[in-house]
Amino acid sequence: MSSLAIDYAHKHQVRFLDELKDLLRIPSVSTLPEHNADTRRAAESLANEYRRIGMENVRLIETAGHPLVYADWLHAPGKPTALLYGHYDVQPPDPLDEWLSPPFEPTERNGNLYARGAVDDKGQTYMQVKALESLLAAEGKLPLNVRVILEGEEEIGGEGIAEFVASRPPELAADFVLVCDTELFADNLPTLCVGLRGMIYTEIEVRGAKTDLHSGMYGGAAPNPFVALAQLIAKLRDESGKILVPGIYDGIVPPSSEELAAWKSLPFDEEHYRQTEVGSKELVGEAGFSVLERTWARPTLDVHGMPGGFIGAGAKTVIPAKALAKVSMRLVPGMTPADAFAKLREYVLAVVPAGVEVDVRLIHSGEPCLIPVDNPYIRAATAALREVWDKETVFIRSGGSIPIVGDFARHLGLPSVMMGFGLPDDNLHAPNEKFKIANFYRGIDSIIRFLETTGESSK
Amino acid sequence: MSSLAIDYAHKHQVRFLDELKDLLRIPSVSTLPEHNADTRRAAESLANEYRRIGMENVRLIETAGHPLVYADWLHAPGKPTALLYGHYDVQPPDPLDEWLSPPFEPTERNGNLYARGAVDDKGQTYMQVKALESLLAAEGKLPLNVRVILEGEEEIGGEGIAEFVASRPPELAADFVLVCDTELFADNLPTLCVGLRGMIYTEIEVRGAKTDLHSGMYGGAAPNPFVALAQLIAKLRDESGKILVPGIYDGIVPPSSEELAAWKSLPFDEEHYRQTEVGSKELVGEAGFSVLERTWARPTLDVHGMPGGFIGAGAKTVIPAKALAKVSMRLVPGMTPADAFAKLREYVLAVVPAGVEVDVRLIHSGEPCLIPVDNPYIRAATAALREVWDKETVFIRSGGSIPIVGDFARHLGLPSVMMGFGLPDDNLHAPNEKFKIANFYRGIDSIIRFLETTGESSK
Repeated sequence: MSSLAIDYAHKHQVRFLDELKDLLRIPSVSTLPEHNADTRRAAESLANEYRRIGMENVRLIETAGHPLVYADWLHAPGKPTALLYGHYDVQPPDPLDEWLSPPFEPTERNGNLYARGAVDDKGQTYMQVKALESLLAAEGKLPLNVRVILEGEEEIGGEGIAEFVASRPPELAADFVLVCDTELFADNLPTLCVGLRGMIYTEIEVRGAKTDLHSGMYGGAAPNPFVALAQLIAKLRDESGKILVPGIYDGIVPPSSEELAAWKSLPFDEEHYRQTEVGSKELVGEAGFSVLERTWARPTLDVHGMPGGFIGAGAKTVIPAKALAKVSMRLVPGMTPADAFAKLREYVLAVVPAGVEVDVRLIHSGEPCLIPVDNPYIRAATAALREVWDKETVFIRSGGSIPIVGDFARHLGLPSVMMGFGLPDDNLHAPNEKFKIANFYRGIDSIIRFLETTGESSK
Repeated sequence: MSSLAIDYAHKHQVRFLDELKDLLRIPSVSTLPEHNADTRRAAESLANEYRRIGMENVRLIETAGHPLVYADWLHAPGKPTALLYGHYDVQPPDPLDEWLSPPFEPTERNGNLYARGAVDDKGQTYMQVKALESLLAAEGKLPLNVRVILEGEEEIGGEGIAEFVASRPPELAADFVLVCDTELFADNLPTLCVGLRGMIYTEIEVRGAKTDLHSGMYGGAAPNPFVALAQLIAKLRDESGKILVPGIYDGIVPPSSEELAAWKSLPFDEEHYRQTEVGSKELVGEAGFSVLERTWARPTLDVHGMPGGFIGAGAKTVIPAKALAKVSMRLVPGMTPADAFAKLREYVLAVVPAGVEVDVRLIHSGEPCLIPVDNPYIRAATAALREVWDKETVFIRSGGSIPIVGDFARHLGLPSVMMGFGLPDDNLHAPNEKFKIANFYRGIDSIIRFLETTGESSK
């Protein structure tokens, strides 16, 4: 593997990491309105960086929420056009007291960089930025045409970019998308993700009395919204993890026998996974399916929190007037968000306990998607990864959701190459999120070689 | 009804109310450590007031938590000794945004005084203070011996006073207790409370993964503590309100047929109660029991809140590492807190869902109690109430818990007279707590006449 751009990237690794740290210091938590100014600041910081490295037509594209960042470089006539996607928003950092170093003060420990967004997705978005810088600085040009589109709402449903993509704007005219928001199946194992689960994120609100009541005076007469909500949730999922919403499994497209066979050959030790990644006393999930099948190819239902009532220390003897549950479902090929939400809502409203009123609200959703692997971009990616990592690439799915990947396919006809360099224990969405620094560097190399290989193979 | 003390009380009503407002401005929320200084300030304020009106030996008695307030006046040889009980601590004011006026800025509206603690129990404690002031100022003496004991932990289990009572200190040598912490069954209906439910307040903690996890990556493999907790709670109580803990109803002593007949003759309109007090679309509770039986004489189980996980606005796709539920049970005669907690805990631990670990912790508890009504103090109370209210007194129970009433009986052999002047819609423990100002004044009159009558009848 040799390339002027690779040489440049290696020479500037320390600076690249320092610049990433600056970006990670901006608390661009998209779901919290008090961080709206920070979120915009992260977008502006990236736009400035694209301008600095020589990208053109750089600008923020406003949406109803947080802005998109656009940039392009289109001076490679006859070559394909890559659309580089990433997101600059991050998950909330709570629970704060479990972080070993502050979430927005990037800290190096044991060869890792710890910070909220280190790997999801500022670190991976920044690999793209630094790959482009290395190519432009070392060669004075890019090996193909490049457009960049970043969003700031990936963690809250991505409505802004979804609308933008659906409008099929000229800014997104391209041949394929490079998405850097996934992970390696294992360290030192180059990986392309070719399937994502979709999701619906909902709120179930239960209302009982008109106001909070004293549980001594009214216990025995007033409905208790938390008990009712618990009874509802207990009807949504059995203890194995099977979803009890009628018809929810109808029409699911299972993985092919070839794909299942490939998954079986992946280096996966369930007991190691339980101990090091999950840490629970046992794993749970539908009987008859492996962990990879359950997390990649089966729908699941989770509760994320139940706001309302008394949550302070000590005791308050109140029957709360209302209770809320944040409930999401992951969806797999053959399911649609609209159908899954309709079935969930209909079922919940059919089993409402006595005395309470219930609303089910859809907060956001995303389609599941499967990527066809038989195209020149996937072939170029595996070639580039073989060069940088000296290993054959494995194809996996992810249990997570990147709804925009489905939108790129549906509205623009673009195949995505999901090339990510996180590790399974990187604590995405959790305290102590990290990015292995060596993987940040090899990720930059991989993107450089992928873009070069794609440009070369299409002359 | 005539009495120099009553005349004095009537003449000073406006000042009495203003002084109560000063006390209500002190946010003595006993369960919140950040209010510890305020809670002590409320105790000191009351102690100063007892000194000012001429009570003796006034002092704070320290406990492991908030202090007791003690005062006495023991210059009526041959007369009985009354022990006057009240509490100066209050419930937390949340949810704050539902208060029409600030909880710690007492506000008059429609003949009511609105504030946290207006009726529970600063307002009712203050009726005692002002009754004593009126007697001492108008007569230069009290009609019987009086000791006062106030606590600052009634809303958090009352451990300090329980230990003090159990030690049988000379400060509590008395013939009976006057407790002003209950309510009228209906406005203009003088009421004595002769039964209280006991309670256990517990926390059920469920732990799954070692850290918060991404619900996309791990949904289908990692246990979800909120789902598990919901499944547990659904097994504690059925939809009618019946508690499913095995053996929990064993040994319950039902009300006598006379008591049940008396309850049936009380002016109670279930539909009016549903609409004006509860406001839910229907009432709930065990089949085969009336509302009064369910809230006064049947055990109940309620959930007060479920801390943990993501409770902000918007979406966070997390599988929380742990979840907590604040769960209490109200107990009736024939049950004990120790037995009820043991049965609850054993049952919960027997039905733990797969993949999670569960702890059940007892936060505080109180015994249920029934007061014998055949004693001179109850007779003096009904006589005094007849004079002031021109009506016969009704005997009711309360669904709430005042554990110290049972302790006074068990450790000191003292009968309690529970004479309270709140109204059923006073929003105890809820936003917009209030005290009808006319009842504050008539309560002072009632206490004056009760003490005078008790003194006269025992010469």
